[in-house]
Amino acid sequence: KSWTSNTRKNFAVALLLTTVGLLMGFLAAYLDIAVEWLSDLKFGVCNMAVFLNWATCCEGTSSLDTCSTFSRWSTTLQLQNIFSGWSATVDFLLYCVISLIYTCIGAILVITLAPYAAGSGIPEVKAILNGVVMKGFLSSLTFIVKMLGVSLAVAAGLSAGKEGPYVHLGCCLCALLCSFFPLIRHDGRLYRELLACASAAGVAVAFGAPVGGVLFSLEEVSTYFSSQVLWHAFYCAFVAAMTLKVMNPYYNGKTVIFEIPSNLPWNWFEIVFFALTGAVGGILGTVFIRTNLLWMKLKEKHGFFKRHPIGEILLVTLGTCVLFYFSDFLSGSNSEILTSLFNECSDDTQELDDIAKRNEAYLCSIKNSKYVALALLVGTFLKLFTAVITFGIKLPTGIFIPSLTVGGLCGRLIGVLVKGAVTKYPKFALFRECLLSSSCVSPAIYAVTGAAAMLGGVTRVSVSLVVIMMELTNGLHYLLPIMIAVLVSKWVGDVLHVDSIYELYIKIKRYPYLRSNPPNENSRTGWISVRSIMHTPVVCITSNSFRLSDLERLITEYKYWNFPIITSFEENAIVGSVSREAIAFVLGLCHRDNLASRDPRVHFSPPSHLSNLHEAYSILNTNSSSLEDFALELGSIMDFFTLTIPDNTPVVKVIEAFQNTGARVGWLLNGGKLSGVISKKDIIQFMDTMSS
Amino acid sequence: KSWTSNTRKNFAVALLLTTVGLLMGFLAAYLDIAVEWLSDLKFGVCNMAVFLNWATCCEGTSSLDTCSTFSRWSTTLQLQNIFSGWSATVDFLLYCVISLIYTCIGAILVITLAPYAAGSGIPEVKAILNGVVMKGFLSSLTFIVKMLGVSLAVAAGLSAGKEGPYVHLGCCLCALLCSFFPLIRHDGRLYRELLACASAAGVAVAFGAPVGGVLFSLEEVSTYFSSQVLWHAFYCAFVAAMTLKVMNPYYNGKTVIFEIPSNLPWNWFEIVFFALTGAVGGILGTVFIRTNLLWMKLKEKHGFFKRHPIGEILLVTLGTCVLFYFSDFLSGSNSEILTSLFNECSDDTQELDDIAKRNEAYLCSIKNSKYVALALLVGTFLKLFTAVITFGIKLPTGIFIPSLTVGGLCGRLIGVLVKGAVTKYPKFALFRECLLSSSCVSPAIYAVTGAAAMLGGVTRVSVSLVVIMMELTNGLHYLLPIMIAVLVSKWVGDVLHVDSIYELYIKIKRYPYLRSNPPNENSRTGWISVRSIMHTPVVCITSNSFRLSDLERLITEYKYWNFPIITSFEENAIVGSVSREAIAFVLGLCHRDNLASRDPRVHFSPPSHLSNLHEAYSILNTNSSSLEDFALELGSIMDFFTLTIPDNTPVVKVIEAFQNTGARVGWLLNGGKLSGVISKKDIIQFMDTMSS
Repeated sequence: KSWTSNTRKNFAVALLLTTVGLLMGFLAAYLDIAVEWLSDLKFGVCNMAVFLNWATCCEGTSSLDTCSTFSRWSTTLQLQNIFSGWSATVDFLLYCVISLIYTCIGAILVITLAPYAAGSGIPEVKAILNGVVMKGFLSSLTFIVKMLGVSLAVAAGLSAGKEGPYVHLGCCLCALLCSFFPLIRHDGRLYRELLACASAAGVAVAFGAPVGGVLFSLEEVSTYFSSQVLWHAFYCAFVAAMTLKVMNPYYNGKTVIFEIPSNLPWNWFEIVFFALTGAVGGILGTVFIRTNLLWMKLKEKHGFFKRHPIGEILLVTLGTCVLFYFSDFLSGSNSEILTSLFNECSDDTQELDDIAKRNEAYLCSIKNSKYVALALLVGTFLKLFTAVITFGIKLPTGIFIPSLTVGGLCGRLIGVLVKGAVTKYPKFALFRECLLSSSCVSPAIYAVTGAAAMLGGVTRVSVSLVVIMMELTNGLHYLLPIMIAVLVSKWVGDVLHVDSIYELYIKIKRYPYLRSNPPNENSRTGWISVRSIMHTPVVCITSNSFRLSDLERLITEYKYWNFPIITSFEENAIVGSVSREAIAFVLGLCHRDNLASRDPRVHFSPPSHLSNLHEAYSILNTNSSSLEDFALELGSIMDFFTLTIPDNTPVVKVIEAFQNTGARVGWLLNGGKLSGVISKKDIIQFMDTMSS
Repeated sequence: KSWTSNTRKNFAVALLLTTVGLLMGFLAAYLDIAVEWLSDLKFGVCNMAVFLNWATCCEGTSSLDTCSTFSRWSTTLQLQNIFSGWSATVDFLLYCVISLIYTCIGAILVITLAPYAAGSGIPEVKAILNGVVMKGFLSSLTFIVKMLGVSLAVAAGLSAGKEGPYVHLGCCLCALLCSFFPLIRHDGRLYRELLACASAAGVAVAFGAPVGGVLFSLEEVSTYFSSQVLWHAFYCAFVAAMTLKVMNPYYNGKTVIFEIPSNLPWNWFEIVFFALTGAVGGILGTVFIRTNLLWMKLKEKHGFFKRHPIGEILLVTLGTCVLFYFSDFLSGSNSEILTSLFNECSDDTQELDDIAKRNEAYLCSIKNSKYVALALLVGTFLKLFTAVITFGIKLPTGIFIPSLTVGGLCGRLIGVLVKGAVTKYPKFALFRECLLSSSCVSPAIYAVTGAAAMLGGVTRVSVSLVVIMMELTNGLHYLLPIMIAVLVSKWVGDVLHVDSIYELYIKIKRYPYLRSNPPNENSRTGWISVRSIMHTPVVCITSNSFRLSDLERLITEYKYWNFPIITSFEENAIVGSVSREAIAFVLGLCHRDNLASRDPRVHFSPPSHLSNLHEAYSILNTNSSSLEDFALELGSIMDFFTLTIPDNTPVVKVIEAFQNTGARVGWLLNGGKLSGVISKKDIIQFMDTMSS
């Protein structure tokens, strides 16, 4: 019987991973199409069919104005007769109004239905994988609201990406599917492992990078990661990426919205400047994190935006529309900007579409390279500014794409400057390599390294970022420049002592997240005995003298999450612990089976066979030998492995023990007797006081 | 003071990682050059300078026979006059003799100086990272012998690679360098993390694949891997790969001895056949592991080779020479064979050198495709056979390259067959895609997927293998075929229930390695109480009534690795534990400082500040207030975190606890009192009985 149970579990896991992968692929394809359609709807509508986007509606034509099948709103609504001569203004106003409607709908959905859908969701997923319980974060309502909200937010043209939220969406999907498999749902560790796999699938579809997704899940999202998870995550990410590729949402075989051309040549002397983009990316990432924190604190202090979150969102949307609508090359979506930044200037602009051509004409004007540099500089700051005010609003917004855009702009700026310097001083010793090659210094490569460095600076990941960029650039040609940039960015971040944006949000939102890096051992406060911060006395359950009613009274009277089980009140020796949830669960069953009225005694003794929750009830029933006086055996809901620590241990050592074991609560012993308790939350609080 | 200690540690780690990376790069370059020179020395010698290899000596010429500067031994030694007409035979005999001399020297070095240098070393590194202590495995003597031995074994033409041993060499280097930093050497966890980084650097230089190396270390070698290690390993692997690239050992900018051409086209219908290569690779991997095990058992049973390991080596060498010397395309080294297998047939054979041209002519003869297939089939079996008898001899031999060769041969065979089928039945529904493209089915891609699948079947890795192949093939073009092949190979292996070759060797050599996969819960024996297999009574130390002489007596009398510290013999409550090593260390210091003669009392109380071994002595000295009666405070050598478990817990739950905490010993409690002890070794023994 237990053999089949194991096989069934394995089969369930395989089925679940396949389904999550497939659904993530479909979801990403749906979101890609929906966002494009919604974005185009801000400008006008297709005359042939409302649900066609600009590119499909106007196939063959190269510009919005020469396309007869797609008409601007002023034309569709026949407003040009009323406001003759003002149709451009009318179009702009309608553009703004539609954007505002999008974000307003999104905000109302999020605020009224699913507050957890706001933000990227990665900090929360990180916390959940760390063992934090967050009710409703992975519910189906959150999933639907997040899906709709993210398409609206991105389509509205905010400095927001849909790539980060994919991680949350993947985890929601996985949690929903898990609820069909009780075997998995009740195995906390396996459940968290599957969530890690779903995160990997999320990043995999976000960047068309299955291996990078797995590594991101490992490096940034997960707390524990065994090699078994690696394999599961890889399978799930692979299925997701393949599904997306087969769905082909952009009709060009690509899975990512922006393209990076491969095989632009680079010279060895440029390594110095790639490192420079890395340093600048690291600094910009830090600036983003710090100013975002400042902005959050400012909002908290003045409270206006806190009371009116929709007002904040509308202001941010309006600001973004006004700032970028009239700009030459910043008016497109972030993906379009990235595509043009990553494209090298060439004479052959035939294949490019309208916006790309205009951007390219702008970015590649050799005569006005000073103006190009200035535009890139201004663009960097505007995009950084909008990213800062956007991240943290009550809409589902990711930070991947805005970071890439800011970094790309800044990197391209450095590239343009280097190219200018090489053109001006061709005989400078460092540039000598250039004399040999016909075309030297491609600003596009600098845009790529700058984007990677900035993303690294914001998320503080390194290895996974390199792999994601490797998969994005479709090869190893830029491996060295990207590695250099990411390494330098990481160093700069380490020197500036910043947390990643995700860890910052975990801290701000006070999730009980225990970091795996060692505590700062130099503080003498860490060396006080844990006895001085423990909670005592402890509410205990004895292993064989309690009755069912005692348990019921216990969980109504005390709000603790865990209760220790001791041999007897005299001996006071801990044998295990039991969670509040498990007690409530068993009590519910007893009420259902009309056992509670007889108030039987309860025993906690170690199980003699494979325990799963089903067998807990079977024992419960078989034990009723006499009708009047019988006991319930609850050993199967008991946790044997409890972290027990002598209560005179220094706190830093206790922190280490919590980090190493992943325990949520530690029982403190004095001469073998239970003397106190300390929870993960206490530990985190103590670590905060230590670091401040 | 403690601040500087932390900074110093970080600085030491950075310095160490950089040095290991640099040295691994140099080492790999040295080995590449040494092996090529030694290999060519089997055929003849360069007239210009003895230390030049064939390629350098004969630059510009395309064949050994047309090269005037490099002469065969029969010519050099002027033997053609004596044995006129027999010079080919003389050359063959000299070839064999030189090979035998190589392996003989290698074997003598290994057997007399460093027995641990034999084999690939990966099983042992795995065991060390799992917490096993293996004295001498990472010594400088082992390093030197392994370095020399691996060049001799590969140069002798054995079915052995130098890529696996790089992992061991990297770890040796790391351990040697660590001995200069006592701060690191005494931090067991950090030390093992650095060894994991060195393993990553080893694989990185083996395949020029820094990211793949990191993943291999994570997936196959390491037991625990935090995201901090990921970053360190990545840095170390990156430095190593870059150093190797700058060293440029092959004078062509490549870091790997075999090349894989990129961007051969493949069609969707071929996915089926790529999956087939995967399945065959998985099966061949299993066959390799099983026959190698059988061969080992056979050797064990008959004992002849056990008594005469050098005899075995000489026989294997002679057999390999005779089998492959006269073959048309198997006579080259494994790397040469792989290069020709991975190369697609083309009309342009101008750029290829002598051997590659001959192989290509052979592999690409369209008329005799039946003979080609037969040759590939025979080649697969011969290479598999030699790989089986070679892996396990007392020489440093890796299994990566032989696996790739067998898989490549077999994959190419499938490719040739598929191509034949497509040519014969062009109108078969499945092949319809081919009618559209000019050239259809490249057997070279099948060789790549087959090689990956076979390596996956032998080592049971998946994600890291895909990344390594991605880095080897220099792009994502073959990502899907490789992924399919590796996935199928993994599934086949899972269905056949095989361990990786490394885990097999860990089992055979009985290293106390605790696997992280969950125990087989269906066995009822796992549900007996741990009390029935624990050791009792336990030899204890009390926390404040022992004297120094008692400790000394204890470690001479009992050979245990750990001693528990209890409050008193009456109370019998555990407060921590202390290792035999730490006691011996402190005893040594006491003897040095002439404290032992006064036989002071020893106290074990928790430290009140940052403990490192230096501070252990300072307490030792300051405590001596009165000359006659003083006590030593040894709290800093005590381990507070001991795994304590109630002794009525089922064994499967105890196994889980060991796996989760990484503990080496568990103390069993009965009502809070210490009642017994169980070690990791006991647990492993029990798991073995459970599975059998």
